[in-house]
Amino acid sequence: MSNQEYEALSPETLAGRLGSVESIRSHLGDPAQWQVREVGDGNLNLVFIVDGPKGSVIVKQALPYVRLVGDSWPLPLKRAFFEYNALIRQEARDPGSVPQVYHFDEAQAIIAMEFLSPHVILRKVLIDGGRVEGLADTLGKFCARTLFRGSDLAMPTAQRKADAALFLGNVELCDITENLVFSDPYFEAELNRHTPGLDPVVKILRDDIDLKVAAQHMKWAFASNAETMLHGDLHTGSVMVTDTETKVIDPEFATYGPIGFDVGMLLANFLHAYFAQPGHAATEGARDDYQSWILTVTADIWAAFEAEFTRLWRSERHGILYQASLFEDQGHARGAEQARIERLAAIWRDTLGFCGIEMHRRILGLAHNADFESIADDATRARLEARALMMGRMLAVGREKITSMAQVVDLARQVNKEEYL
Amino acid sequence: MSNQEYEALSPETLAGRLGSVESIRSHLGDPAQWQVREVGDGNLNLVFIVDGPKGSVIVKQALPYVRLVGDSWPLPLKRAFFEYNALIRQEARDPGSVPQVYHFDEAQAIIAMEFLSPHVILRKVLIDGGRVEGLADTLGKFCARTLFRGSDLAMPTAQRKADAALFLGNVELCDITENLVFSDPYFEAELNRHTPGLDPVVKILRDDIDLKVAAQHMKWAFASNAETMLHGDLHTGSVMVTDTETKVIDPEFATYGPIGFDVGMLLANFLHAYFAQPGHAATEGARDDYQSWILTVTADIWAAFEAEFTRLWRSERHGILYQASLFEDQGHARGAEQARIERLAAIWRDTLGFCGIEMHRRILGLAHNADFESIADDATRARLEARALMMGRMLAVGREKITSMAQVVDLARQVNKEEYL
Repeated sequence: MSNQEYEALSPETLAGRLGSVESIRSHLGDPAQWQVREVGDGNLNLVFIVDGPKGSVIVKQALPYVRLVGDSWPLPLKRAFFEYNALIRQEARDPGSVPQVYHFDEAQAIIAMEFLSPHVILRKVLIDGGRVEGLADTLGKFCARTLFRGSDLAMPTAQRKADAALFLGNVELCDITENLVFSDPYFEAELNRHTPGLDPVVKILRDDIDLKVAAQHMKWAFASNAETMLHGDLHTGSVMVTDTETKVIDPEFATYGPIGFDVGMLLANFLHAYFAQPGHAATEGARDDYQSWILTVTADIWAAFEAEFTRLWRSERHGILYQASLFEDQGHARGAEQARIERLAAIWRDTLGFCGIEMHRRILGLAHNADFESIADDATRARLEARALMMGRMLAVGREKITSMAQVVDLARQVNKEEYL
Repeated sequence: MSNQEYEALSPETLAGRLGSVESIRSHLGDPAQWQVREVGDGNLNLVFIVDGPKGSVIVKQALPYVRLVGDSWPLPLKRAFFEYNALIRQEARDPGSVPQVYHFDEAQAIIAMEFLSPHVILRKVLIDGGRVEGLADTLGKFCARTLFRGSDLAMPTAQRKADAALFLGNVELCDITENLVFSDPYFEAELNRHTPGLDPVVKILRDDIDLKVAAQHMKWAFASNAETMLHGDLHTGSVMVTDTETKVIDPEFATYGPIGFDVGMLLANFLHAYFAQPGHAATEGARDDYQSWILTVTADIWAAFEAEFTRLWRSERHGILYQASLFEDQGHARGAEQARIERLAAIWRDTLGFCGIEMHRRILGLAHNADFESIADDATRARLEARALMMGRMLAVGREKITSMAQVVDLARQVNKEEYL
């Protein structure tokens, strides 16, 4: 099949086209009994759940255009290739963190993979007020392991350079990030939209030269600093959970970029969940405890990231950077520790910068978060979004002065009490 | 010929093998009358001057090993491919700055190019006390033009990403830089050597944890920050001059990296020329004026770089970074200026870091500079090298605190008076 011309799957054709693939059939059983549902609610792809007598499988197929917009916005099928390559690397670097891949067909842009059940999208859980055991720990470790192990801190550099070159081919999806995340939100770009009542705050931000310069410095870092393989789209809609398990999905935006990008985007989406909570409360104050829990998780993600990054720095620093031959082997182990502290400080600054920008673009740009979108009342939504926007501004512009997660948490609690409209 | 197996050229075989290449023959005339001399005195390649009835041509061929060391250190022929690709890009970005390429044969690793005459290697001129009109201006502009125009500030990003991916293949030459520049000098690596009397200063540097951490931070930046296409080996031995003309040669180390790398390496080699001068003086003080001239050129290179970078920022900033749509088009031209000032400050910090490291490796590592090597007296050489080493330490460790070229010049004059042995 991989030699045939690309053709979009349908529930009717799927069993006929994939029934002979042994690595899929072994999870499902007899193709004659497959039940196929198309469930893609994302912006870009077809997603099928295939149920068979022996189990279920997810079949994801890229479409040659942006599903949300239609064929007026073409998007290359090659993103499935990058998603597949990212998934197998993430699995190797943090085993069990992502769905298992059963089959990949490059020409058809199809990935067949593990059906996660009873997992649901984390963002929905955070809107519904649910809790997940071990959430911060799993996500912090996922970031540390995939980001450390994909960098010159750990990989043989020839392999790291080959991977960096490979993912530089993911041009079109990087282009989406480069435009929609870093630039569009800061002027009246065509694809933007925002809650009408927000206008006064939007004007403040778009007149704020320090903020716009900060956003472009972060874009420079995203475009230039090929430190490691990023997930590239690590928001709470790219995480699936049960009460006790956390998995990361959808790395089609994978590219080599700065370590702080994934971490910052993740924290931004948790901070959105935090600021949106009053909009989901059945009665005033009903979500206060839950809101505190989200903030604790946010802080704990960074703590887990930092702890695991530190563990890996001490145990798996086998790449070309900060070699033991210069430090530990010379009786200068404290030099390696000093370097780690300084490196983490730089990652922290990047993290805050990317976090602030991501908080803006999900309110001002094309792609919004259900955390706020699901709040029906315009005025309430605007009030809460304004807090997230002002918080994002402080993080992006203040990224070199805010030195601890405790300060971020404290700032969030304060901003959560203020009114900007 | 390009389909035949690789075979090293010799003066005897060259005319037979290249005589039918029209782009070479048109510069030389009848191959039967070619005179061929092998003149390669570098570390890596065969270099032939071919004289014909109509003119002369340089034929450079990569050897499959490091010439300096022999076939025990293999090195891929593909570096000729990177040199060729860098040369044509440099010519496009700063026309007239590099030798014209007449012919490239990838399989044979041969580049035939313009014979620069009466040009000589700049390093030799600086040892001999010669002056070159327009030297700082040409080199500063070369850096600004090639580095700005190879980045996402100016290039269409899909093309920039394709180029970054292409040059990521230059693994083995990057490996030389990564090891010999950033790591080996700071411990007793096998390939190192230094002037015997230097031991006390070498010990100070190798015990200096702040310095070793700084060197590794710069290595991180070199390996990760794919800002632009670098020359990659821009020292005074890669520059050929007449009294009034300056050309840049030998970009086989080309790779995508931080803008400050080329600039810093260039400044380091000028500072070496500066500190070495007393070793070339026929009588005490005979080189004082000349030494001042070198320091002025050093400062003027940065000034020319900054001025040209600024001009290009204002006139050719057509890439994805710091777009006019966010600044000038919004009546916020001062935002673009603020961004430029901050960007240049970051380039300056990198420049100082790379400069300091380069000053160390050319005294402590494998590849030394003739500026010092040509000083016969060990004690004199050690005394002057010690100054360069201490200066390099201050630049690398102090890179975030030294804020102007005037401070660097002042520091150099002071260090030039001190004795460290």
